[in-house]
Amino acid sequence: MNNKKILITGFSGFVARHFVDYLDSLKINVEIYGIDIKEPQYDLEQFAPRIKIFFKVLDMTEIEQLEALFCEFIPDYILHLAAYSSVAYSWKNPTESFMNNSNIFLNLIQTVQKNNPECRILSVGSSEEYGNVERDNLPIRENQPLQPVSPYAVARVSQEMMSKIFSNAFQMQIILTRSFNHIGPRQDNRFAVPSFINRIMDIKRKGLKYGEIETGDITVVRDFVDVRDVVRAYYLLLLDGRAGEVYNICSGKGVSLKEIIDMIAEQVGVEVMSKMNMDLVRPMDNRIIVGASFKIESELGWRPEIGLWETIHDMIQYQE
Amino acid sequence: MNNKKILITGFSGFVARHFVDYLDSLKINVEIYGIDIKEPQYDLEQFAPRIKIFFKVLDMTEIEQLEALFCEFIPDYILHLAAYSSVAYSWKNPTESFMNNSNIFLNLIQTVQKNNPECRILSVGSSEEYGNVERDNLPIRENQPLQPVSPYAVARVSQEMMSKIFSNAFQMQIILTRSFNHIGPRQDNRFAVPSFINRIMDIKRKGLKYGEIETGDITVVRDFVDVRDVVRAYYLLLLDGRAGEVYNICSGKGVSLKEIIDMIAEQVGVEVMSKMNMDLVRPMDNRIIVGASFKIESELGWRPEIGLWETIHDMIQYQE
Repeated sequence: MNNKKILITGFSGFVARHFVDYLDSLKINVEIYGIDIKEPQYDLEQFAPRIKIFFKVLDMTEIEQLEALFCEFIPDYILHLAAYSSVAYSWKNPTESFMNNSNIFLNLIQTVQKNNPECRILSVGSSEEYGNVERDNLPIRENQPLQPVSPYAVARVSQEMMSKIFSNAFQMQIILTRSFNHIGPRQDNRFAVPSFINRIMDIKRKGLKYGEIETGDITVVRDFVDVRDVVRAYYLLLLDGRAGEVYNICSGKGVSLKEIIDMIAEQVGVEVMSKMNMDLVRPMDNRIIVGASFKIESELGWRPEIGLWETIHDMIQYQE
Repeated sequence: MNNKKILITGFSGFVARHFVDYLDSLKINVEIYGIDIKEPQYDLEQFAPRIKIFFKVLDMTEIEQLEALFCEFIPDYILHLAAYSSVAYSWKNPTESFMNNSNIFLNLIQTVQKNNPECRILSVGSSEEYGNVERDNLPIRENQPLQPVSPYAVARVSQEMMSKIFSNAFQMQIILTRSFNHIGPRQDNRFAVPSFINRIMDIKRKGLKYGEIETGDITVVRDFVDVRDVVRAYYLLLLDGRAGEVYNICSGKGVSLKEIIDMIAEQVGVEVMSKMNMDLVRPMDNRIIVGASFKIESELGWRPEIGLWETIHDMIQYQE
C-alpha cells in the first residue's frame, strides 16, 4: 500500500483510528482521505509526514458530494466503515438504519463504478448476518445460509448481495467481510463491553468493593476479536482479498457476556452483580455466535494475535 | 372484505386498477384509500356507491405524511403495490431504486406496527428474487434459495427478509408474494410485452405487412400470468394468507419473449423480425424463470384462469 491513496468512510469511528495506527506501525507512506458525518477527535497531523490525512465532514446519502470528493481524490483503495452499526437502534428506527447502511453503500459503489472501477473496496459486514445458527453448524463458516434476524442484519445482507452483483456484472473489486464483535481501546460506551467496563470502574471509583449493573441478556455467547487484529485483517484483504468473496473476521472462540463481566470485575478488583432489565433485551436475538476464520487464515495467513484478557486489560487502561 | 377499509399503495398503477375492478365484480362494499406519487388516470367516482375511493398524492419516503394518513384512515388491509419495479432502471439508479422499494416498505411497516399492528398487509415481491435457478429446480418452488442478480431483486429480497423479521418479532400480519411477470390490458408501454404490442401494431397502422422491431435478448423464458388472475390471488391472500409466508403467483408455464412476439404478430396479422440491440440487454439476467403455484393452490384454491392467447388478445384490443 506504499504511496497509495486510501479513502476511509466512517473515519471518525474507533476502527478507522486503529487502521491508521496500523498503517503508521508499518512505516509506509500513504495518503488518506477520511470522511464521516462528525469530526474525528484527534490530531490528524500526528502521523505526518509519512501519513498525510485529509478529512471532510460528508453525509454519504448525498451522492453528488461524495462523487465530487471521489473525483478530486481518486483513491486506489476504499475502506468502507461508515455504518449505523447498532442492532438495538435498527429495531427502533429501521428505515434510518437501513438508509445509513444500504443506501450509502450503493452511493459509494455507483460512484466507484462510474469514476474509477479498478479501485479496491473493502465492504465491512457483520456476523449478525448469519442470524440463528444451529449448534451443529458452529463455528460458523462463510458458506452458512444467512438468516438475518434484525433490521440491521438485513441491511448488511443486502449490502453483501449488492456487492456480489456489482463484482460479477462490472468486474468491480469489492471484497467482503463478516466481522464478528470487535472490541478494543477507544470504543464508544454505547457498546456493551466498554459500557460494562465504565460502569464496573464506577463502582471502584466510588470506593466500593461491590456493586450492581443493569444489563440485557448476558447469557448470549459472542465471538470477540480485538480491533487491532481486525484492522490488520482489513489491510491484508484490501491488498490481496479476492473480489466478490466474503471472509469471516473472528477469534473462533465463544464467550458469554457474563464471562466478559466477570473478567472485567476480576481485573478491576471489585465484585459485580448483574441485574437484567427487560427493556435492554432485544426482540429477537441470536443465542450463540462463534465464527471460523479458516478462510482468511488459509488465503492470507491472518489469525488473531491478541487474547481477550489483554484486550480487556487495554480497554480498562484506556478508561482510567 | 365487505365493509372493510383498504389502503392501496401504488394506487395509480395498472395492478391497483385491476384490483379495484375485481372488488367491483364481487359486489361488496369497501372503502379504499389510494396513495401514489402520481394521480390515477381514471374517474374514481365510477365505482360508487359500493366502492368509495379516496386518493392522495403521497411520497412514502416521507414517513410523517404516511403516518398522518394512516391514522386518519386506519385501514384493515393494506395492498402494498408501490415500487420501482423496473430491473433495467435499478441497474442505472440502484440507490434510488432501492430507496423506493426497501425504504418505503420500512416506513409502511413501522407505521402499521405503531398504529394498528392487527392490520393485514400484502407485501408484493417478485420472481426476480430467485435469480439464476438450475434447470433441475424448475418450476421454482418457494423454498428455493434466493440468489438475486439485479439491484431490484436485492431490494425485493430485503423487503421479504424484513417482513419475516417483523412478522416474527411483533406478530404482524404480513403476507408475502413472489409475483411472476404479470401482463394485461392497461399495462404501461415501458414494459416489454405492451411495448412489443405497440410497435407491432405500428407496423400494421402504417399499412405494412412486415416490419422490424428492436429488442433486448428475446431468448429468455418467463412465466407470464394475467394481471386479472394476479389481483384475485392478492384478494385471497389478504383475506386468508398466512402471516410471514411467501406465495408464488405464477402460471406454471414458461414462454420465451420470442414466442410472445410471434403470438402478437399472428394476432395482429403482420410478420415481424426482431433485431437485438445490445444496449437493451441487461448486465446479468436469469435465463429461465418458471414458477410453481402449488402452495397458493393447495392453501387457497387459487389457480390462473386466463390463458396467454386471451391475455394478448385483450391487450391488443386495449391498444386499438
